[in-house]
Amino acid sequence: MEISYKSAGVDIDKADAIKENIKKIASGTLKSIVIHGVGPFAAVAKLPAGFIVATCDGVGTKIAIAQEFNRIEGLGYDLVAMNVNDILAMHGKPLLFLDYIGVPNLETINIEKLISSIASACIEADCSLVGGETAQMPGFYEKNRFELVGFCIGIVKKLPQKNKISEGDVILAFPSNGPHSNGYSLIRKLIEEKLINPEDRLKRDKLIDVILRPTRIYVNDFFEIVKEFGYPKASANITGGGIPGNLSRIIPEKMTAAIDKKSLEYLSENFADGIFSHISRFVPEKEMIKVFNMGAGFVMIYPKKKAQIILEKMKGKVFKIGSIEKWREEKVVIE
Amino acid sequence: MEISYKSAGVDIDKADAIKENIKKIASGTLKSIVIHGVGPFAAVAKLPAGFIVATCDGVGTKIAIAQEFNRIEGLGYDLVAMNVNDILAMHGKPLLFLDYIGVPNLETINIEKLISSIASACIEADCSLVGGETAQMPGFYEKNRFELVGFCIGIVKKLPQKNKISEGDVILAFPSNGPHSNGYSLIRKLIEEKLINPEDRLKRDKLIDVILRPTRIYVNDFFEIVKEFGYPKASANITGGGIPGNLSRIIPEKMTAAIDKKSLEYLSENFADGIFSHISRFVPEKEMIKVFNMGAGFVMIYPKKKAQIILEKMKGKVFKIGSIEKWREEKVVIE
Repeated sequence: MEISYKSAGVDIDKADAIKENIKKIASGTLKSIVIHGVGPFAAVAKLPAGFIVATCDGVGTKIAIAQEFNRIEGLGYDLVAMNVNDILAMHGKPLLFLDYIGVPNLETINIEKLISSIASACIEADCSLVGGETAQMPGFYEKNRFELVGFCIGIVKKLPQKNKISEGDVILAFPSNGPHSNGYSLIRKLIEEKLINPEDRLKRDKLIDVILRPTRIYVNDFFEIVKEFGYPKASANITGGGIPGNLSRIIPEKMTAAIDKKSLEYLSENFADGIFSHISRFVPEKEMIKVFNMGAGFVMIYPKKKAQIILEKMKGKVFKIGSIEKWREEKVVIE
Repeated sequence: MEISYKSAGVDIDKADAIKENIKKIASGTLKSIVIHGVGPFAAVAKLPAGFIVATCDGVGTKIAIAQEFNRIEGLGYDLVAMNVNDILAMHGKPLLFLDYIGVPNLETINIEKLISSIASACIEADCSLVGGETAQMPGFYEKNRFELVGFCIGIVKKLPQKNKISEGDVILAFPSNGPHSNGYSLIRKLIEEKLINPEDRLKRDKLIDVILRPTRIYVNDFFEIVKEFGYPKASANITGGGIPGNLSRIIPEKMTAAIDKKSLEYLSENFADGIFSHISRFVPEKEMIKVFNMGAGFVMIYPKKKAQIILEKMKGKVFKIGSIEKWREEKVVIE
């Protein structure tokens, strides 16, 4: 008896063909710093001097909902956004991106469609798609699910200065456009339980639009502010763990970020199409705040005076959600 | 009805506890170039001047076999090895490593055990474990399977010079210690079909030992040779696609790498405990060569004279497997 790799569920020839297409799609994202993009054993780039930042993130179970509604084309954008926003939280400029796609087999999804979505987000974030891996994993995934993981490298001119944060500093936020890529196991559960699936067809489609809307990329808006007003003292990307989980990572010992609940209510109702207000009918408030960004997608800490100027000049684009106060037994208080 | 994240299958508190343990384990790998390791939104390091190389790879379905024989502790080592050997193929020195672990839930596997395995391989490869992501993905994986993906950044002093390769150059190889992390869907199929599971218990255990042995890390041996004899013209990490698939990536147009089949037979029999000779009883030769490294785990191309000196001085550690010849209609010919 003779056994081949293909009979074991792995198609090398098809993988090679897809790889050629990926190369073509990715080549449209390459900046001049890239010496070798997709193709060789590792990508090569010449970075300008400075500190390097690196991060890794996935899209999580948003994949499942996207598959169920046959709209996977936004997931690549989500993947890039989740990673570049983390780079941004360290005040880095995203430069290189690599992706990992794990599939049961090469028929599961249109891989080129995903890569195109990754590439368009890379262009948006001014980042080069330089490599990745597509792995055929027979017997690993349930019901044709797949995995989508990203890695991003950036450079930082000026690192965040958490130790410069002081009482009176103001916490500003860019509004989010939805739950980004966090809390989707919970959202899935709500859909399964038919809690957020109103009968009204139009309403439901709108809801799915908001739920599946790709994560906002904050790179350009962040650097626009930096260019005009200088770097924040520190920043946080609001992902899993919500505002308390993520903001607490940048608050110095013995200081408290006091978040104005009303400002979150305002953002929740007026941005992201009110999705958070909608979901909060079924999920306890405490849980909402731990899981979702509540309309505050990316957060920056500025000295009070500078914050006031930013708020004036960037009206409607940046919002105040709180300020730094003396220690109140918790790093983040929302009230 | 109220729904929580935990009831949807995601345990943030346990994830936080695991993250703290990961931080501790990873801190043992940090070199002085690292400014921030595991913890912040992105890792930060100060790299020496030079070209940066970046790569991404997974462990593939070796995970399934490791789980079936309850020996997942080598998989982290595999993950690092697969990535650093790719960095090495671009003549890079691995510096920073990030991992992604996707699990159905946090009870599926001992995540700290995996991270310890990653950390020990990072130490072996002189690389810092600076970040990563552990994602809880309820409903994504079959039978408690999980995903393991790695990402490595290195720097290169001198890039490979494919264009300097010329007729008469010699192809040297470091012997592998087994199939590394490639071809495991095929090996799994062979195990399922009971083709490589001899009755003899002792023999079977030995076989599983070899199959699950973590991928050899070539970093130190490579730089030992470089230090004494200079860089090869180009190098290849022999992964999926085997010698033809990987060596062809570094052979210039209109030249052929002529591989001596006898040398591969020698390596197959005398290294990696003869696993390739064993498997080849059930898999067509052509397929074997496309899927496995056949005992030649990492390959370097040197000018003839230098190669001869290396072969003499590194006897038993480096082997000649072929040479560069004029064009013979294929980039790699094995005969």
